[in-house]
Amino acid sequence: MTQRLRGVLAPVVTPFKRDYAPDAPRFARHCKWLLAHGCAGLAVFGTNSEANSLAADERMALLESLVEHGVPAAQLVPGTGVCALTESVRLTAHAVKLGCAGVLMLPPFYYKGVPDEGLFRAFSEVIERVGDARLQLYLYHIPPVAQVPITLALIERLLARYPATVAGVKDSSGDWANTQAMIEAFGKQGFDVFAGSEVFLLRTMRAGGAGCITAGANVNPHGIDAVYRTWRTQEAEALQAAVDRVRRILQSQVSMIPALKATIAHYGADADWQTVRPPLVELTLEQRAVLVSELGAAGFDMPGLKG
Amino acid sequence: MTQRLRGVLAPVVTPFKRDYAPDAPRFARHCKWLLAHGCAGLAVFGTNSEANSLAADERMALLESLVEHGVPAAQLVPGTGVCALTESVRLTAHAVKLGCAGVLMLPPFYYKGVPDEGLFRAFSEVIERVGDARLQLYLYHIPPVAQVPITLALIERLLARYPATVAGVKDSSGDWANTQAMIEAFGKQGFDVFAGSEVFLLRTMRAGGAGCITAGANVNPHGIDAVYRTWRTQEAEALQAAVDRVRRILQSQVSMIPALKATIAHYGADADWQTVRPPLVELTLEQRAVLVSELGAAGFDMPGLKG
Repeated sequence: MTQRLRGVLAPVVTPFKRDYAPDAPRFARHCKWLLAHGCAGLAVFGTNSEANSLAADERMALLESLVEHGVPAAQLVPGTGVCALTESVRLTAHAVKLGCAGVLMLPPFYYKGVPDEGLFRAFSEVIERVGDARLQLYLYHIPPVAQVPITLALIERLLARYPATVAGVKDSSGDWANTQAMIEAFGKQGFDVFAGSEVFLLRTMRAGGAGCITAGANVNPHGIDAVYRTWRTQEAEALQAAVDRVRRILQSQVSMIPALKATIAHYGADADWQTVRPPLVELTLEQRAVLVSELGAAGFDMPGLKG
Repeated sequence: MTQRLRGVLAPVVTPFKRDYAPDAPRFARHCKWLLAHGCAGLAVFGTNSEANSLAADERMALLESLVEHGVPAAQLVPGTGVCALTESVRLTAHAVKLGCAGVLMLPPFYYKGVPDEGLFRAFSEVIERVGDARLQLYLYHIPPVAQVPITLALIERLLARYPATVAGVKDSSGDWANTQAMIEAFGKQGFDVFAGSEVFLLRTMRAGGAGCITAGANVNPHGIDAVYRTWRTQEAEALQAAVDRVRRILQSQVSMIPALKATIAHYGADADWQTVRPPLVELTLEQRAVLVSELGAAGFDMPGLKG
C-alpha cells in the first residue's frame, strides 16, 4: 500500500484538440504544473475532467501517457466508476496495475432511485473482481450531477466489509452538514474525507478531514494549498477568504468546466485549451472577457503557467 | 434506406448468467419469441435492457450474435447513445454496418443542465462522424432517468439540418401532452413518434404517431400489438384497457426491470432469467409471488414461451 494522499487534489481538466481528440502532452504539462504548485495528488478523470465524455480506452491511454511523461503514479487517483460494471472493473484494475495511489469511484449513475443493496453489490463486485490488495477506493458522492447518492449507511456497510480497501470519500454534495457527518462517523477509522469544494477546506481540516478534491485546484492550487498548510494557524481564515473569492468568480460563469479551461487558456496564453467536448459548450467571447477581468481585479494569477 | 418500422417495439431485457455475463443464446431466443408474438422490431439496448450496465464491446458482441442467430438486422433498432461521444460514434457506426433499421439514441446524460447547443453538437458529431446515408436516428427522450431532455426546439434544429437521418423519437416522458406536441409539430415531416409506454398507444395512433417502444412489450407483445392492429376500430378501447391492466401490475412492483425478468422467468419456467446486473436488484420471493398471482388473476399468459 502506497502512502495515503492528503491535502489538495485536482480533478484535472482534460485538454482536447480541435477535433475533440484528447491532447496527451498538454495534459501531462498541466498535471506537472499542478504538482509543482500545490497539488498533493491528481484526481484525473473526475467530473471536471469530462471523464464521462471519454471512452474507457481513451482514459486508459491518457493515464499510461501521463506516467510515461513522468507524472508519478503514486500521486494519481483516477476516476474509474462508470455505469457498466465490467468497464468499472477494467478501468480500476488498470489503474491499480499502473501503481496509482487510489481510484475515485462514482456509483453507476444511469438508473435513479436504486437501493443501497444494489450499490453495495456494484462496489463490492468491482473490489472482488479487481482482487488486488493494493486497491485504495475513494467513493465519489456528487448527487447534483450523478443523482445517485453514496449514503452514510452504504459507506458503513462497505467499510465493514472492505476496511483495507475503502479509503475515503469525495463529498461533492455541497452540503457541509453531510461532510461533517461523514467525518464524525468514519474519520477515526482511517477513512479520509475530502471536501468536494475548496470553500469547505478549512472547516474540513478543523473537523478532522483529509483535504479537498476540487475543480478550483485546476487554476488555484497554490492558493488552496496555502489554506491546507496553514489550517492550524490564525492566518488560515484570510487565506480561505481569498480562495473563496476566486471560486465565486469561477462559479459565476454559466458553467464551471469551460470557465476553468478559459482561465488556463488565458493565463497560459494557449487558446486551444478552451475546447470542451459536447455536450458542453465553451464560454462566449463576452463571458471570457468578464471572467478574465474579474480574476484580474481579484489579483489572481497562475505563476509559471506560460511557456 | 430500409423500410421504416411502425407498430410495437420492445426494448428487450438482457439475460445474464449467474456471473453477470450476457447470455447471448437466451437473448436471441427471447428476441425471436418477441418477433413471433407481435413485435414489429426490437429496440435492444434500451433502458429496460440494462444497456448502460454493459460495456460497448459487450453490446457489439451481443448485437452481432443476434444477427448470427438469425434475428433480422432490419428489425433491430439498438440503443447507441452513451456519455462518451467517441463511444456513441463507434456503437452507431457498428449498428449501421450490420444493417440495423435504425438506432435509438440517448443524449449524453452525465452532465445535467447542458444547453441545447451542446446536445445539438453531440448528435450532430455522431451523425457527421458515422457519415452513412443509411443511418436512421431515433431520439430517446426519457427525462425521468436520463435527466437530460430532448426538447422540441432541439428536434426542430436537428430535423432541419439532417432531415433524411433524424427519423423519429421515443417519448418516455410519461407526459401525454409532450407526445402530442411532438406529433403535431413534426409528425407530418416523416418524423415517427413512438410512445414510451403502451398505455399511450391508442392515443398515439389516433394522433398520428407510429407506435410504441415499451418495456411492457417484453412480456405482452401480443396484447399490445392487438391494440396497434385494431386502433381504427371500436374494439381497440377494450384491448387498450386490457393492456393497461397488465402494465399496472408490472409497474406496481418496486422496479420494472426485475419485474419483467421475473415474469419471463415464471412463464418461461427458466429461473436464470431473474438475474439483473448491479446496481439493480432482483425481486424478492415475496414480490415475485405477488406479481405472479396478480398476473394470473388478470388472465395474463405468454403463449409459446416455455421450452
